[in-house]
Amino acid sequence: MTDEGPEIPAATAPAAVPAALEPQGVLDLLGLIAYAQLVAFFRLSDDAALAPTLADKAALAEMAVAEFGHFQLLRGRIEALGADVGQAMTPFVAALDDFHARTAPADWLEGLVKAYVGDGIAADFYRTVATVLDSDTEALVLEVLADTGHSAFVIDRVRAAIAADPRVAGRLALWGRRLVGEAFGQAQRVAAERAPLARLLADGSHQLGDLGRMFASLTDAHEDRMSALGLSS
Amino acid sequence: MTDEGPEIPAATAPAAVPAALEPQGVLDLLGLIAYAQLVAFFRLSDDAALAPTLADKAALAEMAVAEFGHFQLLRGRIEALGADVGQAMTPFVAALDDFHARTAPADWLEGLVKAYVGDGIAADFYRTVATVLDSDTEALVLEVLADTGHSAFVIDRVRAAIAADPRVAGRLALWGRRLVGEAFGQAQRVAAERAPLARLLADGSHQLGDLGRMFASLTDAHEDRMSALGLSS
Repeated sequence: MTDEGPEIPAATAPAAVPAALEPQGVLDLLGLIAYAQLVAFFRLSDDAALAPTLADKAALAEMAVAEFGHFQLLRGRIEALGADVGQAMTPFVAALDDFHARTAPADWLEGLVKAYVGDGIAADFYRTVATVLDSDTEALVLEVLADTGHSAFVIDRVRAAIAADPRVAGRLALWGRRLVGEAFGQAQRVAAERAPLARLLADGSHQLGDLGRMFASLTDAHEDRMSALGLSS
Repeated sequence: MTDEGPEIPAATAPAAVPAALEPQGVLDLLGLIAYAQLVAFFRLSDDAALAPTLADKAALAEMAVAEFGHFQLLRGRIEALGADVGQAMTPFVAALDDFHARTAPADWLEGLVKAYVGDGIAADFYRTVATVLDSDTEALVLEVLADTGHSAFVIDRVRAAIAADPRVAGRLALWGRRLVGEAFGQAQRVAAERAPLARLLADGSHQLGDLGRMFASLTDAHEDRMSALGLSS
């Protein structure tokens, strides 16, 4: 590990950017988010097979397509930085694939909760991390994370299912806790395995705090989302 | 079943449109193509799991996303006609799902050949049928069928695989014949089961001829595509 990085002249650097932003850390972050979006595309398409109607199936496909659009934006940025998107994503394949293998939804409702809650946690995490990036990259990450407008669809479907059978709520609340636990577990693994990314997070420690404090803040937002679904967290 | 449909006044009907274009037949055709595109989206996403690299995986996802865009166009048209897209697609679910169940690719190359050849046959069929439609619907169908520009990717990958191992060509040629046989079998079933669609095809018989002659013309185009892949048909 090294602390040397290109010094950004104080006059041109935006105030919020740490002086020694490591290029490999930024590439790691972009690679991580790119693979997360690509794999989200595939998981959402898979989960659509569980949909009870053709319209619901199409709605989940639409969410998947939005994730792929995000992947394309990130791929463009990675290539603009002169890097290979496959190489940038590779360090994160195992952790993200494991997350999804360990959280395969058993039915349509679990799939919806995963799409909403998983997407939400990931977005909060990236949004927090984005604050340490240069302003161009930050703007791109925020664009990728803009709500794709599908939340209302999920909230509507989950609340209707709970209204029809209140016992569903307990099972889905448990499922939400499991999702957040698995997500944090894999995030910890990524932070431990990828030094450049871990340093990027540490660079921004005045905003981010340590990983534990970040998890606490992510958990608060997660609880808000569970409430929106009508679930206790 | 009934042969009565609203009579289109001769003065306002475009010259190429048969006088008694049955609305249910048009809706059937749009529903058939819409479901074909939706299911193609899901099958391509599934088949991407077989991709040897992350870049190839992303390329197949991109083809899937293009199919979903087509589905959205068709859904818009069906809704503009005051119909429900789920209802319009339902009569064709069994035949298309059966086609895909009977032609699940065993590996990445079979998936590529299926994407290219299956897409091509479907496009030729819709293009032929579109000639009997009103000009707005015809324009929409032709837009949906415009080459999504992914052919070059498939041709490149399949030709490279044959160059690396010429024995691959025999297996893939057999696979291509099987795909076209299954496609025609399901097309015949759809024509037999859906009277309004069958009548739409018969209405345009001066352009289309009977189903047998249409198959013959589709087979010619199929052979051209197989040659492009470096395969005998």
